Amino acid sequence: MKLKMGLIGGGAGSFIGKVHHMAALLDNRIELVCGAFSHDPERSKQSGKDYLLRDDRVYGSYAEMIRTEKKLPGNQRMDFVSIVTPNNLHFDPARLALNSGFHVICDKPVTFSLQEAIELERTVRETGLIFALTHTYTGYPMVKEARHIVRSGRLGEIRKILVEYPQGWLSEPVEKTGNKQAVWRMDPAQAGISCTMGDVGTHAANLAEYITGLTITQVCADLTAFVPGRLLDDDGSVLLRFNNGAKGVLTASQICTGEENALMIRIYGEHGGLEWHQMEPNTLLLKWPDRSMEVMRTGAGKLSEAASAHTRVPAGHPEGYIEAFSNIYRNFADAVIRFKDSRQPDPVFDFPGIQEGVRGMLFLEKVVESSSGSKKWVDL
Amino acid sequence: MKLKMGLIGGGAGSFIGKVHHMAALLDNRIELVCGAFSHDPERSKQSGKDYLLRDDRVYGSYAEMIRTEKKLPGNQRMDFVSIVTPNNLHFDPARLALNSGFHVICDKPVTFSLQEAIELERTVRETGLIFALTHTYTGYPMVKEARHIVRSGRLGEIRKILVEYPQGWLSEPVEKTGNKQAVWRMDPAQAGISCTMGDVGTHAANLAEYITGLTITQVCADLTAFVPGRLLDDDGSVLLRFNNGAKGVLTASQICTGEENALMIRIYGEHGGLEWHQMEPNTLLLKWPDRSMEVMRTGAGKLSEAASAHTRVPAGHPEGYIEAFSNIYRNFADAVIRFKDSRQPDPVFDFPGIQEGVRGMLFLEKVVESSSGSKKWVDL
Amino acid sequence: MKLKMGLIGGGAGSFIGKVHHMAALLDNRIELVCGAFSHDPERSKQSGKDYLLRDDRVYGSYAEMIRTEKKLPGNQRMDFVSIVTPNNLHFDPARLALNSGFHVICDKPVTFSLQEAIELERTVRETGLIFALTHTYTGYPMVKEARHIVRSGRLGEIRKILVEYPQGWLSEPVEKTGNKQAVWRMDPAQAGISCTMGDVGTHAANLAEYITGLTITQVCADLTAFVPGRLLDDDGSVLLRFNNGAKGVLTASQICTGEENALMIRIYGEHGGLEWHQMEPNTLLLKWPDRSMEVMRTGAGKLSEAASAHTRVPAGHPEGYIEAFSNIYRNFADAVIRFKDSRQPDPVFDFPGIQEGVRGMLFLEKVVESSSGSKKWVDL
Amino acid sequence: MKLKMGLIGGGAGSFIGKVHHMAALLDNRIELVCGAFSHDPERSKQSGKDYLLRDDRVYGSYAEMIRTEKKLPGNQRMDFVSIVTPNNLHFDPARLALNSGFHVICDKPVTFSLQEAIELERTVRETGLIFALTHTYTGYPMVKEARHIVRSGRLGEIRKILVEYPQGWLSEPVEKTGNKQAVWRMDPAQAGISCTMGDVGTHAANLAEYITGLTITQVCADLTAFVPGRLLDDDGSVLLRFNNGAKGVLTASQICTGEENALMIRIYGEHGGLEWHQMEPNTLLLKWPDRSMEVMRTGAGKLSEAASAHTRVPAGHPEGYIEAFSNIYRNFADAVIRFKDSRQPDPVFDFPGIQEGVRGMLFLEKVVESSSGSKKWVDL
Repeated sequence: MKLKMGLIGGGAGSFIGKVHHMAALLDNRIELVCGAFSHDPERSKQSGKDYLLRDDRVYGSYAEMIRTEKKLPGNQRMDFVSIVTPNNLHFDPARLALNSGFHVICDKPVTFSLQEAIELERTVRETGLIFALTHTYTGYPMVKEARHIVRSGRLGEIRKILVEYPQGWLSEPVEKTGNKQAVWRMDPAQAGISCTMGDVGTHAANLAEYITGLTITQVCADLTAFVPGRLLDDDGSVLLRFNNGAKGVLTASQICTGEENALMIRIYGEHGGLEWHQMEPNTLLLKWPDRSMEVMRTGAGKLSEAASAHTRVPAGHPEGYIEAFSNIYRNFADAVIRFKDSRQPDPVFDFPGIQEGVRGMLFLEKVVESSSGSKKWVDL
Repeated sequence: MKLKMGLIGGGAGSFIGKVHHMAALLDNRIELVCGAFSHDPERSKQSGKDYLLRDDRVYGSYAEMIRTEKKLPGNQRMDFVSIVTPNNLHFDPARLALNSGFHVICDKPVTFSLQEAIELERTVRETGLIFALTHTYTGYPMVKEARHIVRSGRLGEIRKILVEYPQGWLSEPVEKTGNKQAVWRMDPAQAGISCTMGDVGTHAANLAEYITGLTITQVCADLTAFVPGRLLDDDGSVLLRFNNGAKGVLTASQICTGEENALMIRIYGEHGGLEWHQMEPNTLLLKWPDRSMEVMRTGAGKLSEAASAHTRVPAGHPEGYIEAFSNIYRNFADAVIRFKDSRQPDPVFDFPGIQEGVRGMLFLEKVVESSSGSKKWVDL
Repeated sequence: MKLKMGLIGGGAGSFIGKVHHMAALLDNRIELVCGAFSHDPERSKQSGKDYLLRDDRVYGSYAEMIRTEKKLPGNQRMDFVSIVTPNNLHFDPARLALNSGFHVICDKPVTFSLQEAIELERTVRETGLIFALTHTYTGYPMVKEARHIVRSGRLGEIRKILVEYPQGWLSEPVEKTGNKQAVWRMDPAQAGISCTMGDVGTHAANLAEYITGLTITQVCADLTAFVPGRLLDDDGSVLLRFNNGAKGVLTASQICTGEENALMIRIYGEHGGLEWHQMEPNTLLLKWPDRSMEVMRTGAGKLSEAASAHTRVPAGHPEGYIEAFSNIYRNFADAVIRFKDSRQPDPVFDFPGIQEGVRGMLFLEKVVESSSGSKKWVDL
Repeated sequence: MKLKMGLIGGGAGSFIGKVHHMAALLDNRIELVCGAFSHDPERSKQSGKDYLLRDDRVYGSYAEMIRTEKKLPGNQRMDFVSIVTPNNLHFDPARLALNSGFHVICDKPVTFSLQEAIELERTVRETGLIFALTHTYTGYPMVKEARHIVRSGRLGEIRKILVEYPQGWLSEPVEKTGNKQAVWRMDPAQAGISCTMGDVGTHAANLAEYITGLTITQVCADLTAFVPGRLLDDDGSVLLRFNNGAKGVLTASQICTGEENALMIRIYGEHGGLEWHQMEPNTLLLKWPDRSMEVMRTGAGKLSEAASAHTRVPAGHPEGYIEAFSNIYRNFADAVIRFKDSRQPDPVFDFPGIQEGVRGMLFLEKVVESSSGSKKWVDL
């Protein structure tokens, strides 16, 4: 049985909507049955055709979609919504969907503000429904492996975490020349208190906490808007302190001219270190003080169950971003199916949820506070 | 409208069947409607469930499937078959499908023998239907770019081509310990006259001809079965001569212990060179005598229409093997849809077909002949 | 004519003494004529034999050496001293040598304290003699090229500088198990106020300022001694602000388990970025927003005069650490020879001097102050 | 005590002469005392000044140098000659030097013809003196380690050897535009029967035999002169068969446009594989069927005595081409010193000698024979 998905956002010109759709389709466990692609009904209809939807399942607003779908027979109506709108349009549809009995998968950052995130956490808890947040990068097999290795203790107590997410696409004021992705990210009314730190910095913070199981307890940040006229940051660096005494640095930037999407993390413990690059995602480097560096590879050698369960093809057949994204969808779908059967989610098929969303918004709020203040350390 | 696919082969234990299925689904233009997954009807039924098919569309043989589907109403019956069986089971279903009016997409090598390939070419020509051969690696954006660059003349006249496809998974006799993939590949009755040169060597030869537009005219080969007891080659190297006077080397091996799937090609012309590695598929290196090497990247900078048309996500979001495979399916589907509309295929959305299949079988036959003879050069 | 060198330090067990010697010899412009290798005359004599020196040119103290050599005839006595002792033994011999008319080349950090550095700067100025500081990494051809590129304006105004110097060799308390290099570096009486930030952090800061021509104006630091019992830092991260408004991060660590000597810098300007890794020193990456990354290589293509003048062999014949070190010695020797001829140093053959030494000590003092205080930014 | 070297060749415009000189100096065990840099006495004198030699030790011919030096007192005269002339000028000076009691270190290929090599072998044997051949690449620490690993049996029986040496500097007819290096290499009267296969192909063949301890027993070659007007090959590929049944491919080219000096070898055995690249010489990759690839590094972890004895600086401080070259000189010098003391050479400090020279010339002759004949395999 395939789960039925309704898409909120993702109309013409959207990059991330199409990615969500491909990610949902890949494993043949989800089908798109309806969508509210735009608040302009005409444009929504047009986008619905691109998605090969029947006209009567394309809506002019998320509210109409949720209300209408709710009334459909159980074998027709959508099972969950996928929310791919700008940050300011996550909270309302998510809450309405949950309160209407639909599970939710939502792009990050989870909401516009920390306050919204905390409220949404309450709604998730009260409804008991499944909520997934697409911190895509945690879906890569080698990220799962990294997490397994750190948590198994092979690296010893963690001391130092270097995580960075440099991009270059905002090194020029493309928001002034019609780049739709840039326009809303640089608009405080749509993006919130931060552009870059919210857009990519939260991915980096999530990755560090996901792999290590540690939590960031203090930040000392310096955010900048390098391109003249910007109201939100296009660059930032943060000194980090973790709950076990580990230290770290997080750098997120969208003005690192010439960089593509170079999320990278290095983690050093007493006994060893690891390194992972999103742009070469099937490789995980393990470093040791007294013997050769090991190059772990997706699908090769002896990997953890966590890594194997998120691998689709044999070693040397590169798995990429869409597959990582599909892993989030696949695991979310698995949890939804188990929910229908009144079963608990399988911990092997994990995915980020509302807690990660709240952590991300807390991180963001404290980083912005730190950057604008004169106090050295701000507690999370 | 989605095209309807029938799958031949791809039952439990098949790796490549699932890959074909994912590749077909990704772009929401194809749906699987039926299958003949095994010649054992019970096992076929079981596999049908894994694919979420209705029982009445799961068949006990390809012949039954083709015969039955042909009788279904046009809005229900499959549009094409996808053939993912061992080499000895390509020709018969392909010919039957074509002669029954179904388009065909088929795994490589195209047939069991050159003779079959030539016959199939005739059938394709006579029926006028669409036939695609899944030389997957030609589906990568940077392979398209490489082809564009060579054909644009930027490298000058091509002189030297080094193509290699080392794998290591047959360095031990895994065919004796139940590896299903190895069993049929090492069985002359199923694989034909060659294991490694057919399985991966034909990919390498195809890649060289695809990118350069040249044809191999002479070969001098040395094939080996290193693992005792094997009837077919597990390794081979071939000196190549091309129709423009270029020279080359093709190495294909499955006993390069520790190698994953390391298809790689380097092409040198009078004015420049290029290098592409399948395991880092989003990077294309351009080398020049008097200036810096250029690192071209999927989705970044100024790329050809050919590359852009085969790219799904922005630069730095790795696209992998499944996406390359999907490009073959997407382009095949595009040609089928155009066929229905009596339109010609769009050359931007190219894919390997029966001619490439015949070339591959010719290459294979001549390489085997060369290896077993004392003549230095064998003409193709 | 070869210049005559006297070595201070570098006895048995010293790593860096032998490196200085090789670096001095490589270009046939310098010969070692005398040394004070240890304050133990017997051990000094023994080391003298390893260096193939005559007994009468091996001294029991640097003071004896300087005093005695001064009295030798001009065609016999040393021209300069090379100081390779621990930090606390730089200032006195350097000052004595200068005041005795000998030029000085000295390992870094230049002195034990900022105060000493400032005093030494005065002595250098007053004597007018040549003083070189072995910030080795500025001797690499591709570092010269990077500097040339930044200063030529090709990257536009610089915005972001990421420099890091991770090592792993102090991840265990090797100073307790007899590692001579570790013992003095972790002893405040010999090393000064910092271990890691002085040992490698100053290299990183120097590299950033050298390449960009910018100066660090503010720091916000977090230093740590992770290994229990240490009195000095074995790790640190620093947020940086530069005089033109650029921001940066400097990470220096010796507890990044498994890292070798991974000095690396990335610099991003309005129009492009660059990246250089000490462990692959012959490669310089240039990144652009709208075209392919360029891989510049020592000896290949069109390089600046600055790079070419520091290259010894054709492209593809790797030049390494010793060659970079030799470039410092070669350029220092060139300046000494010009001094003898009353000529100015040639700016193409540049080398770090006492100003860089003072900058390094200032950086170090402010970083330590920042780390121990609650103020967010400390001015340099 | 330093050994005294006399240089034959290496005058103005010579690249390799200066490299030999730097390599000889680095370890403070050798000094240049005399030279015959050119057959034009005036030019020889001029070059002597560049090398800082006294005029009376600069000669107008090698014969004069050998004759004159022989008469000097033992504490003044040279101990050995270093021959860095074109191929046609190796044999005569080498034989004269040996017959005059001088040890010899000689650039490769050892002689102009196989016949000369065999004769020279006899002279070496008869005089009992030390003869070294500068197959530089065997001097790298990681090549020593590779040899140690293969010979220790860790990879199992060797099956497949892929060695290649692509360069691009002859992709245009630079011999017609005054490139001195190209002029003699493309002149049959100076270079012999081959350009590229002799210049770089013999390095590749030597490397394969050196690391594996196997011998090439059969070749099947295809040599080409791609650039019009050339009398000697600028490119070639060779199928190889080894004495244990292993197979291989050797590619040597100087028309691989854009390549620098990309010597690379991969060796696959029953149990594992290894890979080494000259342009990243401090890294050695070990590949295994069932566990992670290992990245061995100069100076890091547990290495063989062979590797450690050829390493000068700690891990992460790159050692390059000059250091590898110095290792050949250092080991040759060690053997000469031991010879003076009537001791046997230390096998840890190995270096290529006349046997390797004869092997190289045999390989070369048979490759040229194979390329021009119609027989598939030519025996060595």
